Amino acid sequence: MSKGTLLYAQSGGVTAVINATASAVIQTARKHRIKVLAAKNGILGALREELIDTSTLTLAQVRALAHTPGGAFGSCRVKLKSLEQDRAKYERLLAVFKVHDVRWFLYNGGNDSADTALKVSQLAASSGYALTCIGVPKTVDNDLAVTDCCPGFGSAAKYTAVSVLEAALDVAAMADTSTKVFVYEVMGRHAGWLAAAAGMAGNSPADAPHIILFPEIAFDEVKFLDKVKATVAKVGYCVVVVSEGLRRADGSFLAESAGSVDAFGHAQLGGVGPLIAATVKDKLGVKVHWTVPDYLQRSARHLASKTDLAHAEAVGVAAVEYALAGNNGVMPIIQRLADKPYRWKIVPAPLSRIANHEKKMPAGFITRDGFGITAACRRYLEPLISGEAPPPYGPDGLPKYVKLGTATISRALPTFG
Amino acid sequence: MSKGTLLYAQSGGVTAVINATASAVIQTARKHRIKVLAAKNGILGALREELIDTSTLTLAQVRALAHTPGGAFGSCRVKLKSLEQDRAKYERLLAVFKVHDVRWFLYNGGNDSADTALKVSQLAASSGYALTCIGVPKTVDNDLAVTDCCPGFGSAAKYTAVSVLEAALDVAAMADTSTKVFVYEVMGRHAGWLAAAAGMAGNSPADAPHIILFPEIAFDEVKFLDKVKATVAKVGYCVVVVSEGLRRADGSFLAESAGSVDAFGHAQLGGVGPLIAATVKDKLGVKVHWTVPDYLQRSARHLASKTDLAHAEAVGVAAVEYALAGNNGVMPIIQRLADKPYRWKIVPAPLSRIANHEKKMPAGFITRDGFGITAACRRYLEPLISGEAPPPYGPDGLPKYVKLGTATISRALPTFG
Repeated sequence: MSKGTLLYAQSGGVTAVINATASAVIQTARKHRIKVLAAKNGILGALREELIDTSTLTLAQVRALAHTPGGAFGSCRVKLKSLEQDRAKYERLLAVFKVHDVRWFLYNGGNDSADTALKVSQLAASSGYALTCIGVPKTVDNDLAVTDCCPGFGSAAKYTAVSVLEAALDVAAMADTSTKVFVYEVMGRHAGWLAAAAGMAGNSPADAPHIILFPEIAFDEVKFLDKVKATVAKVGYCVVVVSEGLRRADGSFLAESAGSVDAFGHAQLGGVGPLIAATVKDKLGVKVHWTVPDYLQRSARHLASKTDLAHAEAVGVAAVEYALAGNNGVMPIIQRLADKPYRWKIVPAPLSRIANHEKKMPAGFITRDGFGITAACRRYLEPLISGEAPPPYGPDGLPKYVKLGTATISRALPTFG
Repeated sequence: MSKGTLLYAQSGGVTAVINATASAVIQTARKHRIKVLAAKNGILGALREELIDTSTLTLAQVRALAHTPGGAFGSCRVKLKSLEQDRAKYERLLAVFKVHDVRWFLYNGGNDSADTALKVSQLAASSGYALTCIGVPKTVDNDLAVTDCCPGFGSAAKYTAVSVLEAALDVAAMADTSTKVFVYEVMGRHAGWLAAAAGMAGNSPADAPHIILFPEIAFDEVKFLDKVKATVAKVGYCVVVVSEGLRRADGSFLAESAGSVDAFGHAQLGGVGPLIAATVKDKLGVKVHWTVPDYLQRSARHLASKTDLAHAEAVGVAAVEYALAGNNGVMPIIQRLADKPYRWKIVPAPLSRIANHEKKMPAGFITRDGFGITAACRRYLEPLISGEAPPPYGPDGLPKYVKLGTATISRALPTFG
């Protein structure tokens, strides 16, 4: 008789270490002799009954997931609505779970995914089907409530701090006759965590980044240009970090493309970096350069933070343990015990406290002028970007990332939708 | 009595490993008990008599240069014209050299700098001043003639291949419901070497990058969009790499900003990535993302190629040896002896064969459809991106890059210009 199956799915934007969580989930479940199915392309795979049997993976493949960025089983940007509005989809999920004897559902994503996991667990409970649902945290945006930080953020933060440091050395060398202002665009739609991470590149007022434009602080063009001008006069050049989510005083995004929204209904951003650069060039008449790293910042496994990797693996292990213990409707979260030396542990938190919440930067993390990070913010960020965990490289000079097949098991149910 | 002084200057865009060349120059000169002055901000420092005495640097600082990106002494985008047109400047250089007993001049740059070094050497010879001028190669563009490759290129190439590989894993995971086409803009004004390096990220037609747009091949929008469409249909997503130097059939740059030129008279490019992305979005109606890494690709010392670092150090050592041997008007270049296992050596080449030449990609390195790289190109590129040489990191999670003071020695001459 079957012991039941564990279903694992990835959701939303992927990270440099979400596959490390997947690796830990599969390895922990194997220890307990539990079969793990992975949904292809996140919750869509569960709805479509496109499921990948991870028991066909070799141990070497499963281990290699821990150093491979992206989402090995596929992810998706699909948000289920309320139980009332999307009843048919929730019932389909339950039908798929039943036919494959899924008794544990692990949903690896952000606050939208926590919401979905919670709703599935409620439906299962009300229909009398024994199912334990666990949310597993992941997001480079670091905006999940309750947890001290989110797996995926530390590596993106390290990438950001290192890249800003390196680019600043380049600009410093060229500033006399060439680029005087360099603009670096970071991700972070509503919360300035990645923008703040750029602040770790420097320590003194002369160090880059000289100006950080947070989504939490309304953009004041006059004040901004004054500060750019003063910095160029004093330091010789100016490095500006701008969050994709930068807003005007009226709340509108600087980079809003009219009518362009993603599947979650969020405005699709990008391009505020060149916009800020053009403003500086037009108004101050200096040579500017800009960068938009875009997906590079969330997929740079080659520069992962060791702390972040440890978090990603630990939440994977804990998620399986909580699931098997029947700890329904929770998420393993990271609790900070001490800043320095950094100590942390994993504890369960109810999904209801996490779903649909968004954690912004505390006011005490942004300097009074709105352009930098405070000592408290540095204390918070430093352990998260600390330590290196490079992937193995091949003789061809490239990281040895694993690519899994995506063959799915035979379907037992008719096509849905 | 003085043995004479060696003057070292950095020129043009800096790289992840140009300071490794500087480190090798200083260490080699020290072995010969030769004093090294470094010009602040390249040739400008020589003209302005702003010279940094490297004997004040500790050995630890000099060694740390080898793992620090940017240009530690400052670089510049200034090109001297012909001896006739810029006679006053060349004579000023000679006056500065004489007053500081500069007997060896090492100019670390691209083909413009090779030209300057050659002219200075000609003027010195004609005026009877004993001076040995050496060009030292450096450019991420890999477009110097005669040499097999250029220090700085291998690291930028490795950064490009790894970044495209990582971003492609991200796109692959999201393509079902989100981004279907990802556009990556690389540097390379006239030569597609960095664009080609992106090709190392994949090996089969299904692998990213699916399309490379080289500056050597005129852009054909219809053919391009057809290939994007076919790739999305077959693979599920499409990764496009585009060179900043992409041109229309009439020779104009796609990304030309009217009237915007740098100090060398080159058009200032950038922004062709978003342009190509917008074209795809408008014409094919699929979700796109794009990245412009800009300076990140040439300053990413954290991802330097071990081969490239070895080249950068070797040309520094050889430059000093050639200088002291009175081997005037040459550049130490890299000669390839074998592809696999890779073997190479440093030999001198006359600056006259390098100055103002530009090496494009051989036609045999681009596939017949114009969108990919051939096996011959792979054989050429593989050893150049091979091996890792990460910098040491601090407990704060950042590379331990050295920052030198830029105090200059007292001036002996009146201000110039």
